[in-house]
Amino acid sequence: MNLQLDALRQAYRNGETTPRQLLLALREKAAALNPDYHLFIHLLSIEELEPYLAALDGRDLDSLPLYGVPFAIKDNIDLAGIATTAACPAFAYVPQRSATIVEQLLALGAIPLGKTNLDQFATGLNGSRSPYGACPNSVLKEYPSGGSSAGSSLAVALGVASFALGTDTAGSGRVPAALNNLVGLKASKGLISTAGVLPACRTLDCVTTFTATAREASQLLALTAKPDPRDEYSRPNPAWNDGSAFGAPRPFRFGVPRAQDLEFFGCDEGPPLFAAAVERLKALGGEAVELDLSPFLEAARLLYDGPWVAERYSVAGELMEQNPDAVLPVIRAVLAKAPAVTGVQTFRAQYRLQALKAVCDEALENLDCVLTPTIGRPVTLAELVAEPVLRNSEMGYYTNFMNLLDYAAVAVPTAFMSNGLPWGVTLFGRVFTDQYLLSVADALQRQQQTALPTPANTARNDRARLVVCGAHLQGLALNWQLTQRGGRLLETTFSSPDYRLHALAGGPPLRPGMVRVKDSGVAIAVEVWELPSSELGSFLTGIPAPLGLGKVQLADGRWESGFICEPYGLEGAVDISHLGGWRTYLKTLNT
Amino acid sequence: MNLQLDALRQAYRNGETTPRQLLLALREKAAALNPDYHLFIHLLSIEELEPYLAALDGRDLDSLPLYGVPFAIKDNIDLAGIATTAACPAFAYVPQRSATIVEQLLALGAIPLGKTNLDQFATGLNGSRSPYGACPNSVLKEYPSGGSSAGSSLAVALGVASFALGTDTAGSGRVPAALNNLVGLKASKGLISTAGVLPACRTLDCVTTFTATAREASQLLALTAKPDPRDEYSRPNPAWNDGSAFGAPRPFRFGVPRAQDLEFFGCDEGPPLFAAAVERLKALGGEAVELDLSPFLEAARLLYDGPWVAERYSVAGELMEQNPDAVLPVIRAVLAKAPAVTGVQTFRAQYRLQALKAVCDEALENLDCVLTPTIGRPVTLAELVAEPVLRNSEMGYYTNFMNLLDYAAVAVPTAFMSNGLPWGVTLFGRVFTDQYLLSVADALQRQQQTALPTPANTARNDRARLVVCGAHLQGLALNWQLTQRGGRLLETTFSSPDYRLHALAGGPPLRPGMVRVKDSGVAIAVEVWELPSSELGSFLTGIPAPLGLGKVQLADGRWESGFICEPYGLEGAVDISHLGGWRTYLKTLNT
Repeated sequence: MNLQLDALRQAYRNGETTPRQLLLALREKAAALNPDYHLFIHLLSIEELEPYLAALDGRDLDSLPLYGVPFAIKDNIDLAGIATTAACPAFAYVPQRSATIVEQLLALGAIPLGKTNLDQFATGLNGSRSPYGACPNSVLKEYPSGGSSAGSSLAVALGVASFALGTDTAGSGRVPAALNNLVGLKASKGLISTAGVLPACRTLDCVTTFTATAREASQLLALTAKPDPRDEYSRPNPAWNDGSAFGAPRPFRFGVPRAQDLEFFGCDEGPPLFAAAVERLKALGGEAVELDLSPFLEAARLLYDGPWVAERYSVAGELMEQNPDAVLPVIRAVLAKAPAVTGVQTFRAQYRLQALKAVCDEALENLDCVLTPTIGRPVTLAELVAEPVLRNSEMGYYTNFMNLLDYAAVAVPTAFMSNGLPWGVTLFGRVFTDQYLLSVADALQRQQQTALPTPANTARNDRARLVVCGAHLQGLALNWQLTQRGGRLLETTFSSPDYRLHALAGGPPLRPGMVRVKDSGVAIAVEVWELPSSELGSFLTGIPAPLGLGKVQLADGRWESGFICEPYGLEGAVDISHLGGWRTYLKTLNT
Repeated sequence: MNLQLDALRQAYRNGETTPRQLLLALREKAAALNPDYHLFIHLLSIEELEPYLAALDGRDLDSLPLYGVPFAIKDNIDLAGIATTAACPAFAYVPQRSATIVEQLLALGAIPLGKTNLDQFATGLNGSRSPYGACPNSVLKEYPSGGSSAGSSLAVALGVASFALGTDTAGSGRVPAALNNLVGLKASKGLISTAGVLPACRTLDCVTTFTATAREASQLLALTAKPDPRDEYSRPNPAWNDGSAFGAPRPFRFGVPRAQDLEFFGCDEGPPLFAAAVERLKALGGEAVELDLSPFLEAARLLYDGPWVAERYSVAGELMEQNPDAVLPVIRAVLAKAPAVTGVQTFRAQYRLQALKAVCDEALENLDCVLTPTIGRPVTLAELVAEPVLRNSEMGYYTNFMNLLDYAAVAVPTAFMSNGLPWGVTLFGRVFTDQYLLSVADALQRQQQTALPTPANTARNDRARLVVCGAHLQGLALNWQLTQRGGRLLETTFSSPDYRLHALAGGPPLRPGMVRVKDSGVAIAVEVWELPSSELGSFLTGIPAPLGLGKVQLADGRWESGFICEPYGLEGAVDISHLGGWRTYLKTLNT
């Protein structure tokens, strides 16, 4: 059965199944899978499921956006009344209240199926560091599921949940997505509440989602990205990132790491798979721009060599000191460095991170997103057993720096390796570009799976387009008002043939008024600029009457925001429509 | 001689003096003051001054915004070729390059007079912790200058510099301003570069200015708030904070601490002086709103009890270990706690601070600024000698939390105590409200000194006003587009009698078009809303043709941003001007 959000909703609407029927069937399927895959630490009993199912009785499908949607919860995220173990039985506690994100999903109608297995204390990227059993890959059992959100990735990949919640501090929500042909969204920190989530590194932790498609990740993020007073790291989601206009932008610029920064650890298939992904983004209208990844990679190294291990220790250290055997040896080895970390070292590492972030932020300034592989080389379970720390850290080469640098990231599948193992890329970008990144990931998935055309360009991400026709044209008197706000010229074009252009009285600066008319309009030369949406407000404030900003139609029929003019202001103006544009008019003044 | 920026410029323009004449005179005056006030650690020699003076030779006054302006530099800020001591001779080094802020000021034409005395390593709020001598108050010598930017405050207060640079980690730029009748601006961190500034707590440090007036502080900030690649904590200044529209807003809401949070340490004059300041803000159009200051004060306590002392230790610790006598005993006592600070403690304190910041930010959400005293009770030099740590920390009661919470703050004088000592208040607000706070401080100063009318309401701070006339009116179909963006209703009023109102064809939602006309216009009922300027961009993007945002004139003659309509869109519309407003029209539909 197709458990994707829209398909499941349609199945409920058609009466093909009910939440009770579905959940009980999924519960049986999960129980049958568990001995081989160890994906659930605790699968809800029929009695434990019942209150959630009963809550839907008599409710209208249309009243609940996630009516009857089965989901799985990584076992470091609280579900009221069920033990949270973090894959460490001695650490377990029974929370009285669910995590905020779980409460949100329950209120939307979703049904929890169980608590999923993970690398102990979410410390690992492979899924084999658990006393509840190692999680094998959903496609090739000699490979790991990836971790630390191991069981959650398997729950979706093996078809027992529509989506699953993971967490991600350095890649735990993206590595397992890549290995299991899923979309893994590490949203900007603070968008999805971490209240009721056992911390790994509290300054870095994010709740993630595993879904089959980027579109579903977008829907879930839009439903749950709300400020939470319970989470001190909660941040309000800017309007441009609310997902209300999901679609790929065109044109766009994406960063591609320099050849010397790409690392495939000897995997021959990696380079051509990544090159193919670059070409696919180009086919979607992207311009590839070479990016020096070295400051990003240096930030990543801070995570393992630096003081952040003290954050993990602040959670599990006390247990480890009192009862060392309760903690897996590999986790003990990680935590052992923590007590020696000093405050001075901590601040110095934070200074260094801040310096690297300044460099990385500047590198992203003129890019819409960056494309990297998600994993350089997938390793087998046997390789992990042989070198558990080295092989684990290799898998984080492209994922470790994102949380430290406060970026958003989406892992999206793009191919299969010759042995059948899924392979994918990560799109990342500045904070609060989540829905934009998901739009691009969605376009990648559509391009691949259905050859559908790219969705119409309706994206309302954090850049706004603006049509200018006068003193704001490139090089003219007021153009600095755009460039100082981070504006860049997108295209030089014409309006639709529906306008008259007037040179207004007054000035300097001289200003035109472009007025849409019913008859005898002409096409006017214009430029389309884009600038941060957040800057448009101050720009508008500085525009004097009779000018304003409204919608202007371009030669290709599109409507974009741009300059308009109230006709009362045309008194004393000269109609210069026959000149076709403002630059031509200015030339007539100079001759 | 009046050294304020505008007055000095006029004096140069009139030929009353030259930079060379002035600087040599000020140098003599400073040298004469220094034995009593210990304000300069190093006063530039005539030879050291000469290159700066020579750089102005042949330059046009109008080409340099700070032509020949004498300024003083706190001696933890580098001036190329002159030792930086941080008031610790054993620590001194001679920088090859000036701090970025100094380079900026030199490039603007300002002339450095010397390096000023400070509490050693900028650790203190009183100005007496220096081997170069204690700095007495400029008005009452039995009181301290305040610190740590002691000499810088004296340089301006005693009339040897137009302005001076200080630093501020917990109040070092505000406490001495309050004690010496000056404006002390602790701008939002990252606006003024700290590259080339010896850190105290690098995550908190800010460069500050001392000036006679808020207007000068505004001018200096506008000239120097530029991103600096040399400073990893540098942040771009949003357009709304560029100072281009300096003026007090009206109406505004300001927070006033609850009675139980106000602390004057037994000073009887404090409560009435503060109450008078509250009344004066009300007279400027402010509405006082009671504020629970306790989470702010709890954040302040973190600074002294928490791990941030490790930041100071990372600067001075090595010297102290190797040569304890090189560091003053009181500074050694502060730093002694640092080596024991662990990484775990550091992160836990940062979590706690984050939680408090979330609470404090929310408290500020609906306030334009907050008013507090700057100092609860000024203490005498004798009291400081008796209890150097306790009395020092009392002076930071209202200043310690600002840097930790990432707020902007301006100390501004408002009165004199009965003994003649200056007394003042601090206005603080969210990050990047600097120019707004300075506008209010300027209004306070003008109100007091010259009884000038409040400056015209032209402030372009981070809230934008918007005139709405249709579906965005309170309670109507699209009003959520304002409220969800943090909008609030400022006033219900009318347009000027120059408009026609039309019910446009189409919908839902039904929309009006308000068109300015030359003849037979009427006044239309409108509402003025305000919302974050950064949200206007996405709001504009969602407005369909033929509507747009331009300037609308109100009944009192003001022009504000608001809805306009292109007349081509009036086809099929109904003129409803005779109803006087959109609500009245909607009522006619319902009956």
